Amino acid sequence: MTTEFTNWSHHRLSRVEQALERFLPISNDATDRLHTAMRYVALGGGKRIRPLLAFAAGETHQACPEHVTIVACAVELVHAYSLVHDDLPCMDDDVLRRGKPTCHVAFDEATALLVGDSLQSLAFELLAHPDLAQTSPHTRLPQVEMIRLLATASGSHGMAGGQAIDLANTGQHISLAELELMHQHKTGALIDAAICLGAMCGGPLEAAHLAALKQYARAVGLAFQVVDDILDATASSEQLGKTAGKDAHQLKSTYVSLMGCDAARQFAHSLHQQATAAIKHLPHNQRLLDLAALILQRTS
Amino acid sequence: MTTEFTNWSHHRLSRVEQALERFLPISNDATDRLHTAMRYVALGGGKRIRPLLAFAAGETHQACPEHVTIVACAVELVHAYSLVHDDLPCMDDDVLRRGKPTCHVAFDEATALLVGDSLQSLAFELLAHPDLAQTSPHTRLPQVEMIRLLATASGSHGMAGGQAIDLANTGQHISLAELELMHQHKTGALIDAAICLGAMCGGPLEAAHLAALKQYARAVGLAFQVVDDILDATASSEQLGKTAGKDAHQLKSTYVSLMGCDAARQFAHSLHQQATAAIKHLPHNQRLLDLAALILQRTS
Repeated sequence: MTTEFTNWSHHRLSRVEQALERFLPISNDATDRLHTAMRYVALGGGKRIRPLLAFAAGETHQACPEHVTIVACAVELVHAYSLVHDDLPCMDDDVLRRGKPTCHVAFDEATALLVGDSLQSLAFELLAHPDLAQTSPHTRLPQVEMIRLLATASGSHGMAGGQAIDLANTGQHISLAELELMHQHKTGALIDAAICLGAMCGGPLEAAHLAALKQYARAVGLAFQVVDDILDATASSEQLGKTAGKDAHQLKSTYVSLMGCDAARQFAHSLHQQATAAIKHLPHNQRLLDLAALILQRTS
Repeated sequence: MTTEFTNWSHHRLSRVEQALERFLPISNDATDRLHTAMRYVALGGGKRIRPLLAFAAGETHQACPEHVTIVACAVELVHAYSLVHDDLPCMDDDVLRRGKPTCHVAFDEATALLVGDSLQSLAFELLAHPDLAQTSPHTRLPQVEMIRLLATASGSHGMAGGQAIDLANTGQHISLAELELMHQHKTGALIDAAICLGAMCGGPLEAAHLAALKQYARAVGLAFQVVDDILDATASSEQLGKTAGKDAHQLKSTYVSLMGCDAARQFAHSLHQQATAAIKHLPHNQRLLDLAALILQRTS
């Protein structure tokens, strides 16, 4: 990555961190443990790929950074809630996340359940934030449409549906098409939401721009997952900050198990090319191009 | 209850049932089990007190029934999700709800987790429904404010926070003030949301009307809980359609354990009086009065 991109990214991530710090509830007597646990899972960790995608997409439509910060936090809170619930004993039963004990290990299962539930509510509270309504007349944000978009991406036709498909697939032999369908729901829907919401902070989108962004989102979302599968098969838990090798352990079909490592790497490269081709006519697309490269090259 | 109220109530409940039937996802191949389970928990059962309160509050402000139906469904979905998560083994570990096996018993824990998560997303999807935006000019609905209200009522400062307080209180000796604080969060916040959202379907509320509705909500919400505690201590599981006697079994403080049954009954009567006094100057308040009486007199 270029120094310029690193600076850009660092600046946006500290915006998101400060905003999450402000938006997350502070501890008080009665709900101390819940609020402490919410901050434990949502602050100070994670690659924050979705917030960066929201900022990069926002730049293609001259979005106001203060607005993008809010939608980036909302999407990141949905992502954080899904990890907390996904790590629970009845799901993946995982003990390590972002280099720390998972929420139900550090606190307890009941608290982890409520942390996920509360982070989801907070995400919608943020998208309904009055600050998002304060725009100049020519960029009135389609706030209700944005909320509907995040709700659809999160629910049973999006991310949660993807987790259900994942459950149904575990231990089954599935095709590449079925694997892609699962990932389109499980991670693709929220990555698409991050990108669309970031761009919508610049006002309602032209159909051609929306289509280009959605094609980009589909390709980088899938590339992210292919690289994830390669890393799960080849990297260590220390490197990843989460349990490595768990796909094979849980008998999950992955791009590596279905295609082999070399073909999976080639597939990731081809998705990267699709992503860059999709947005080549969008203005101010440099950060989206940088992020597509980062997703391909990441090692953790 | 009068025949007139029974007819009114029956008509609203069948509206809500039909709307939930329409809004809940239908089964398809990939997410079949999740969607079947969502319908299992959200259709065909429950007292639907919150939807009825939304309709009754809507009548005080000439709200359009089609709009109230949507917000009533959204609130009921949040309530249904909270029951599914509350029944999980890591929370109350309950096997019977609305006379049927609980979701994790009828399906499995992972599915029940995703059902709750998806029902919450769906609730916000409904409040962001385009049909809620289609109003005549003089009753433009404050849709974003309504979404923020439901999000706040559901999250860590509302319902989920109340469940965290409940966890912290279990097995502890707590005061009546602490018990009330817990219930204000755990059930009061969503009952308040049902009433405010129903009324807001008639357009933005005058401060005095909002204050009256909030006082009514606080009193009926607490009365509902006091009667719940009395029924848990005195009725059978068959009568309730859920496990009776579990408060004592789980060493939870209740109005019955702290005050005794007779004083709890008197307290419920005094809350009923507070509820009716709060709304005596509101127009078209008959259904709110009927519901306050129903909440006091219910036997299941």
